[in-house]
Amino acid sequence: MATPHDLDATDPLNGFRDRFVIDDDLVAYLDGNSLGRLPKATQERLAAFVREEWGGRLIRGWTESWVDLPVTVGDELGAALLGAAAGQTVIADSTSVNLYKLLHAAAGVRPGRDEIVIDATNFPTDRYLVESVARARGMTVRWVTPDLVDNVTVEVLRPALGERTAVVLLSHVDYRSGTLLDLASLTAEVHAAGGVVIWDLCHSAGVVEIELDALEVDFAVGCTYKYVNAGPGAPAFAYVAERHLAAAEQPIAGWWSAADLFAMSDTYESSPTIRRLLSGTPPVAGILAVQQGVRLIAEAGVEQIRAKSEALTAYAIELLDEAGLEIVTPREPALRGSHVTVRHPDARRLAEEMVERGVVPDFREPDLIRLGLSPLTTSFAEAAAGIAVLVGLAE
Amino acid sequence: MATPHDLDATDPLNGFRDRFVIDDDLVAYLDGNSLGRLPKATQERLAAFVREEWGGRLIRGWTESWVDLPVTVGDELGAALLGAAAGQTVIADSTSVNLYKLLHAAAGVRPGRDEIVIDATNFPTDRYLVESVARARGMTVRWVTPDLVDNVTVEVLRPALGERTAVVLLSHVDYRSGTLLDLASLTAEVHAAGGVVIWDLCHSAGVVEIELDALEVDFAVGCTYKYVNAGPGAPAFAYVAERHLAAAEQPIAGWWSAADLFAMSDTYESSPTIRRLLSGTPPVAGILAVQQGVRLIAEAGVEQIRAKSEALTAYAIELLDEAGLEIVTPREPALRGSHVTVRHPDARRLAEEMVERGVVPDFREPDLIRLGLSPLTTSFAEAAAGIAVLVGLAE
Repeated sequence: MATPHDLDATDPLNGFRDRFVIDDDLVAYLDGNSLGRLPKATQERLAAFVREEWGGRLIRGWTESWVDLPVTVGDELGAALLGAAAGQTVIADSTSVNLYKLLHAAAGVRPGRDEIVIDATNFPTDRYLVESVARARGMTVRWVTPDLVDNVTVEVLRPALGERTAVVLLSHVDYRSGTLLDLASLTAEVHAAGGVVIWDLCHSAGVVEIELDALEVDFAVGCTYKYVNAGPGAPAFAYVAERHLAAAEQPIAGWWSAADLFAMSDTYESSPTIRRLLSGTPPVAGILAVQQGVRLIAEAGVEQIRAKSEALTAYAIELLDEAGLEIVTPREPALRGSHVTVRHPDARRLAEEMVERGVVPDFREPDLIRLGLSPLTTSFAEAAAGIAVLVGLAE
Repeated sequence: MATPHDLDATDPLNGFRDRFVIDDDLVAYLDGNSLGRLPKATQERLAAFVREEWGGRLIRGWTESWVDLPVTVGDELGAALLGAAAGQTVIADSTSVNLYKLLHAAAGVRPGRDEIVIDATNFPTDRYLVESVARARGMTVRWVTPDLVDNVTVEVLRPALGERTAVVLLSHVDYRSGTLLDLASLTAEVHAAGGVVIWDLCHSAGVVEIELDALEVDFAVGCTYKYVNAGPGAPAFAYVAERHLAAAEQPIAGWWSAADLFAMSDTYESSPTIRRLLSGTPPVAGILAVQQGVRLIAEAGVEQIRAKSEALTAYAIELLDEAGLEIVTPREPALRGSHVTVRHPDARRLAEEMVERGVVPDFREPDLIRLGLSPLTTSFAEAAAGIAVLVGLAE
């Protein structure tokens, strides 16, 4: 077995680690899937923004450069991470708020159909919002109950689809098991039933190759504070396929979603462009942090990032197997995202003790420890050191 | 008439100007009512946050300090600016998103009533959202059409109220004329009809004395990038009176509004506290900037700020009167906020030429120039210099 240092030495992305602030007080940060590390460029960009743009340009900054940021950075993110042509992606609000808007918009493009399909393993916000939107629109929630690890496959989804299917909401990577769903076949299956699909890309954006346009995905949403490294509470992205734009109405109709932002007109007319997804004044600093994170990913290339992710997760699984720990993440690289999850009856205590020893994982109720391996910032040596601590504590 | 320098010399808040970044390339910044200046303390706090908290603590920052920020900073803002006891205010999302949530929550606490009342002079987002929420809930919008300057008085509002009144949405200060509505009598009038009121405090928070608890206001919302000086796109605040909390349900049910954030439970139960107003992951840096802005206001005191605001606006009106310009802002100090608005047929051109000469006002369609006078950062000398440029151009 190659040493972790050998693996780092031959890693083509090894140099990216130096582009981030790496705090030496940690043995290993294995939680980049929850909150990514701080890019040095972002630190500089935010300081310059505060000093020169907010402090120096003041209100003039809006018309000089900020007003279009939700769309221009959306386009950058769409091109680099999502396989999305320009004009379909915005950066705004939180994932929850954007998902709420997309659920309404998606239901609206399939009038006459009254079911929203979601799986019981999905992230809480996704499940809660589906229930809320279905209730408000007089629709029915159709639950799919997959196995946590095998998760939603075409076979699992098919029986839930039919003439009543309006919208299907799926998460690309399961937040607990790390299972990567087959975006292509599942999207095609939803379309075959006449419905539209919303993909939640929170745990895949920036770390899995995604081709929204080519696969004819309808809607997508995701956060930027994980693998995009845009900071705690950074604004999220929302994607609407160009063919749905005209019919995609969302209910948080603010001045920023209006056809003319500064006309302040008597009657509301929503923008014909992707700006119709906006609502209120967007967070400028947050969007600039997204831009820096996106540019690092674009520079490295998602294909390279994905290759390293597969290698890192394979290496982690090898080490965990050697120690005899139970892994709930699929062993086939094509079936997993970029975190590896261990099941252990003392998971909570182990996670706490890992933190005390300078290794930061994620604990998920009731018995799961997630080890996030973020290819731009996690080295093989770091992964090995972190897993060694877990193994030592679990013995 | 006292010289502006005399007025500055005796201004008890004069020293606060030095606590902000003042860009010497401007003759006068008269747009603090659109985007407040940058507090030096905020510049330092944001840099420290990025470097030490995001970069240094990473995910640990959430449980160590960030998770409660929406409520703790909400409490600080409520106490210093709104006359609100703890537990009723959160910092989150944009004004538009919060207003959307409050409209649904407010309609929900008055079941059986089916009208939302709003005035035609209100800010676009407010009007658009009322129409959207009324449509979604099968309610009717009842329009009040006041004069721009006299605006909504009890006499204007009363005929629109009745047994069908569920919610009334009013803006405390008119964004165009600067007219300050009588929050006390209007709130009492809505209550007499059995309805609840939402106050939009965007143009008054931090610059007008507000007593939400004492006046039994039901709901309130406002931005923080104007007189709170929290930066472009800073998160907004939302207030729900304690007596309405249990019934105030909002539809953007995310994991942050759930009773237990990290339980990730199968069924959604909303938090019994003001956290039920949250949705997704809140923007940490933005909330910290709000906190710095609030602390400057708390240090100065809203009573002192309001006194200077009245003096500044009176002084501006005196100068504009001397020049024979038409003013649409009320001349009685108790009836206006902190901006003074000039009506001129060439308003757009004048505003553009002012900017070319280093004076930044706000233009509002079709013929209005707003002069924002932000008491913590606008000196009398600055107001005089800016108005002199306007007067010279208008001659």
